[in-house]
Amino acid sequence: MSAYQLPSSVVLQEEGPREGFQSEPHIAIEDKLSLIHALAETGLEVINCASFVDVRRVPQMADAEEIAARIQRRPGVRYLGMWLNIKGFDRAMTSGLDLVPNVFASVSDTFARNNNGRSALEVVAAQGAMIERYHEAGMALRAAHLFTAFGCPYEGKASPAHAARMLDALLDVCAQRGAMPEVVYLCDTVGAADPLSVKTTLDLVRNKWPELELGLHLHDTRGMGLSNVLAGLQCGVRRFDTSVAGLGGCPFAGNKSAAGNVCTEDVALMCEEMGISTGLDLDRLAEVARMAEIMVGHPLPGKFMKAGPIRKPATTSV
Amino acid sequence: MSAYQLPSSVVLQEEGPREGFQSEPHIAIEDKLSLIHALAETGLEVINCASFVDVRRVPQMADAEEIAARIQRRPGVRYLGMWLNIKGFDRAMTSGLDLVPNVFASVSDTFARNNNGRSALEVVAAQGAMIERYHEAGMALRAAHLFTAFGCPYEGKASPAHAARMLDALLDVCAQRGAMPEVVYLCDTVGAADPLSVKTTLDLVRNKWPELELGLHLHDTRGMGLSNVLAGLQCGVRRFDTSVAGLGGCPFAGNKSAAGNVCTEDVALMCEEMGISTGLDLDRLAEVARMAEIMVGHPLPGKFMKAGPIRKPATTSV
Repeated sequence: MSAYQLPSSVVLQEEGPREGFQSEPHIAIEDKLSLIHALAETGLEVINCASFVDVRRVPQMADAEEIAARIQRRPGVRYLGMWLNIKGFDRAMTSGLDLVPNVFASVSDTFARNNNGRSALEVVAAQGAMIERYHEAGMALRAAHLFTAFGCPYEGKASPAHAARMLDALLDVCAQRGAMPEVVYLCDTVGAADPLSVKTTLDLVRNKWPELELGLHLHDTRGMGLSNVLAGLQCGVRRFDTSVAGLGGCPFAGNKSAAGNVCTEDVALMCEEMGISTGLDLDRLAEVARMAEIMVGHPLPGKFMKAGPIRKPATTSV
Repeated sequence: MSAYQLPSSVVLQEEGPREGFQSEPHIAIEDKLSLIHALAETGLEVINCASFVDVRRVPQMADAEEIAARIQRRPGVRYLGMWLNIKGFDRAMTSGLDLVPNVFASVSDTFARNNNGRSALEVVAAQGAMIERYHEAGMALRAAHLFTAFGCPYEGKASPAHAARMLDALLDVCAQRGAMPEVVYLCDTVGAADPLSVKTTLDLVRNKWPELELGLHLHDTRGMGLSNVLAGLQCGVRRFDTSVAGLGGCPFAGNKSAAGNVCTEDVALMCEEMGISTGLDLDRLAEVARMAEIMVGHPLPGKFMKAGPIRKPATTSV
């Protein structure tokens, strides 16, 4: 039996206002701002606020610039935007949001063709121009995202070896521009991972690129979200993308692609109970989660916001 | 980094018709029987079908004898009943259901007083008469259940040392009657466990009683159900109590005590994807889970029944 090798602290990056609201048809901008402001009071240090993507394809994000302009910033909190191409980056830069220059690849070729209109290798090649644009803007590459790192509905579970090959191709493009990301996020874009595939892929990537920090972007599509977080923690991962209340997924909509990120406060609870510091106020997070549920008008999958805390042990019971 | 030490196979004991339906106010006996019969077609070897408890306190189980009488048995499947005292055991014995003679203790004294009307130590002492009754009936003790093994809402998280002490007291009562259980189930009765407390408690119990097989009875009250299963698997646990669709818990009822067991098909999916054999037909289980949701008339927490499978990898994608 092996001892757990858990990190002493983790950083949860909040994705609810960005990826979460992206799958909700009609959220008023005032609600979006209220959620962002409330989240900033919970101890979260990084909140992803808007996607600068094609508004014809994602009309929910047409208000990205207005959100960015109206955020009342709390000191110490970074308010991020997300983009997938140069046009989106230029919009994000103008918006005044905090920027994490990044590149991405898709492990699944079919997923890349369906979502980006290009093959997986063409997507990788296009990242060279992104890096050049970052350099023109005087910014250094910071992160890389490996989408469908554990599988997709079209091609099934990904082999860790193939995921590593696609990351290798992406890092080659970076190296050719004299850039290397500090952090690589393995993204379980559709919720195809299981704890063993998380561990196997993390081990492979870490052995190949020990200098890279690794993060996990996980979805709870098939109920294994927190188990996959646990598998990541056991491999020493300290960065996780999460969404308050599990926003982004309505487990009762029957919409497979809309299953949310792992739930911020549920992940935080698991970490804190295992002695891993999150810096988060769980009771406040639960309040924000209930607020999010009211905003979307349907049940959200988070559990802690419904179950509440287990009381701390009385000293006499030990 | 340590390698996973996962078992090659597990046995899931189905608790939906028993513990699951116990928290539903009005399920017709025909529906209960339909569910039991459908579950028996999924590969499940053990199905807990009814509780022989005080019908004034649990009116949902007033039909226990009729259920037992009307089950159409499938060869190879064991159909269990549950009891908490001698009167219940006598009813179960008469009912014709399969019997697993067992004893129990509560780690939480307050929980014992609230649920059994006696202190935790009085509950333990009362098990002596249970064992004597089993012997009178010509049956050997098989299992022991440690309720609130990881905590309760009254006393908070349990210390592993205190859990081990209560188990020690229970095993003393058994030893005094010349009986020892083969299996000890650590029961997270209200969903207070986290993966680290599961591991710590399992390690302590196993080190103290290496001859005992260990099982886990887990509830998903706070979202850590499957993570706790994973922690158990990593400690080599092969026996888990589960309920189809997560029956027994409506995450939207706001009823803390009603959160269901970990979901049979979600646990099975996680096991199978990690190469752990369950002997279960996942597609059939998902069908039964959807049937259970219709029977109770509200959403149930199971995820696989909504998300469906991730396709097997095409050989060309490796």
